[in-house]
Amino acid sequence: MSDLTRVSLSLDQSLLDSLEQQVAKKGYENRSEFIRDLIRDHLARDQWLSGEEVLGTLTLIYNHHQRGVSEKLVEEQHHSGEHILASTHVHLSHEICAEMIMLRGSGSGIIKLTNALKQLRGVLHASLAMSTTGKDIS
Amino acid sequence: MSDLTRVSLSLDQSLLDSLEQQVAKKGYENRSEFIRDLIRDHLARDQWLSGEEVLGTLTLIYNHHQRGVSEKLVEEQHHSGEHILASTHVHLSHEICAEMIMLRGSGSGIIKLTNALKQLRGVLHASLAMSTTGKDIS
Amino acid sequence: MSDLTRVSLSLDQSLLDSLEQQVAKKGYENRSEFIRDLIRDHLARDQWLSGEEVLGTLTLIYNHHQRGVSEKLVEEQHHSGEHILASTHVHLSHEICAEMIMLRGSGSGIIKLTNALKQLRGVLHASLAMSTTGKDIS
Amino acid sequence: MSDLTRVSLSLDQSLLDSLEQQVAKKGYENRSEFIRDLIRDHLARDQWLSGEEVLGTLTLIYNHHQRGVSEKLVEEQHHSGEHILASTHVHLSHEICAEMIMLRGSGSGIIKLTNALKQLRGVLHASLAMSTTGKDIS
Repeated sequence: MSDLTRVSLSLDQSLLDSLEQQVAKKGYENRSEFIRDLIRDHLARDQWLSGEEVLGTLTLIYNHHQRGVSEKLVEEQHHSGEHILASTHVHLSHEICAEMIMLRGSGSGIIKLTNALKQLRGVLHASLAMSTTGKDIS
Repeated sequence: MSDLTRVSLSLDQSLLDSLEQQVAKKGYENRSEFIRDLIRDHLARDQWLSGEEVLGTLTLIYNHHQRGVSEKLVEEQHHSGEHILASTHVHLSHEICAEMIMLRGSGSGIIKLTNALKQLRGVLHASLAMSTTGKDIS
Repeated sequence: MSDLTRVSLSLDQSLLDSLEQQVAKKGYENRSEFIRDLIRDHLARDQWLSGEEVLGTLTLIYNHHQRGVSEKLVEEQHHSGEHILASTHVHLSHEICAEMIMLRGSGSGIIKLTNALKQLRGVLHASLAMSTTGKDIS
Repeated sequence: MSDLTRVSLSLDQSLLDSLEQQVAKKGYENRSEFIRDLIRDHLARDQWLSGEEVLGTLTLIYNHHQRGVSEKLVEEQHHSGEHILASTHVHLSHEICAEMIMLRGSGSGIIKLTNALKQLRGVLHASLAMSTTGKDIS
């Protein structure tokens, strides 16, 4: 976090009114914090599209009774060029496991790995949260 | 469009730098116009979630050789409480038609109609653009 | 629409039960129609990602009192290489217009045009419905 | 995983051809596995909309130098009625932390918690992966 700067912008009074209502409705402390969040969301989405380094968290739901699924999951992750920052495993039931995997790399690489893991036999669901390393958005 | 007001906000210098890069990259005239678009996008999404009156455009792709599909499409639209503002029909091929339908109403009502039309026999695809009546965002 | 073929697939009994519940809940006539819709949705999304010819409907909300906005809208549409199939204009209020524009072309070209139109001064909102020409999905 | 059942469905030959191309292109072992994944994706989305118990993974990026942010993060998580299954913390840089939090609960409750955490001062980004507990989709 660097030094705070003040910038000004022009808004129609009616748009400003709607903005103030949102700030209150969403429970934000003030208008600046609300607009900063809008800018950061935009920047994070742009990083995924423009090939910059991003952070993504992949959630897998799989049936560990399916023969070989754990080995294949590890293998695919190793073959991928994306950097795995952390991986946490949870037992949901006798059969079903949930795993969340935090990855750093290119957006396209992380999406490719998600698709590869999703189609492994035994994997029931794969979903991806698109986040950011925090670079250039703080 | 009402009177222009100036408001100021505080940003970290590094977030401001990233913002300026986006303004240039996306070809916006200035920073104010860029931030206004972020605010309007947020407000439009919020209107769909909070039950306010919204505008949506539904695109249907269907095979008009399927017996009765046109009649059923008209019938479903009439039964829906949403207000149809305009509807335009395009012949894509000997068999396939595209229709775009602009609706005004509640977000949930428009989504319900989309789902009802989608499952008619002969309808191949239905997609919805979530927009706004412009109220409170200009 | 070509000849109907019968194909079979294997499902766990519990997944089949959940499927049957969805078919009933969503009001589909039968299981085949439900699965066909899932396949078509997948194919339409894939066409947008893989550069095939697609159909998209762009909805613009704009303030026509903003000087020159109509001319710029027409100009941008002419400069774009995408083929405009139809365009319908609706007057929402004294100031606000809604326009829906059906386009045929590449997914990336249609997205690029959407972004260009969105940032014109006077344009309050732009949203895109991603659809298909019906080719290969009927 | 229960007993496998065979079901049959009717498809137009052209839709079947497109389906077969997708199965090959995406690297699936066979057509059944591909269709099962389409059904599961649909069921998981439906669970989020219909208030059933779901699993979600929330990714937070925050600046831990912001005073009190860690305490507030823990506090908000405790106040939420959703059940936290696991939480993993990663140090991205001197200032920036990433945290992934696996939650079980209602879709609306998890979305509400995501929004509450997102607006804490010091939190730069919050994103949510919408997954499933595996119930009714295996």
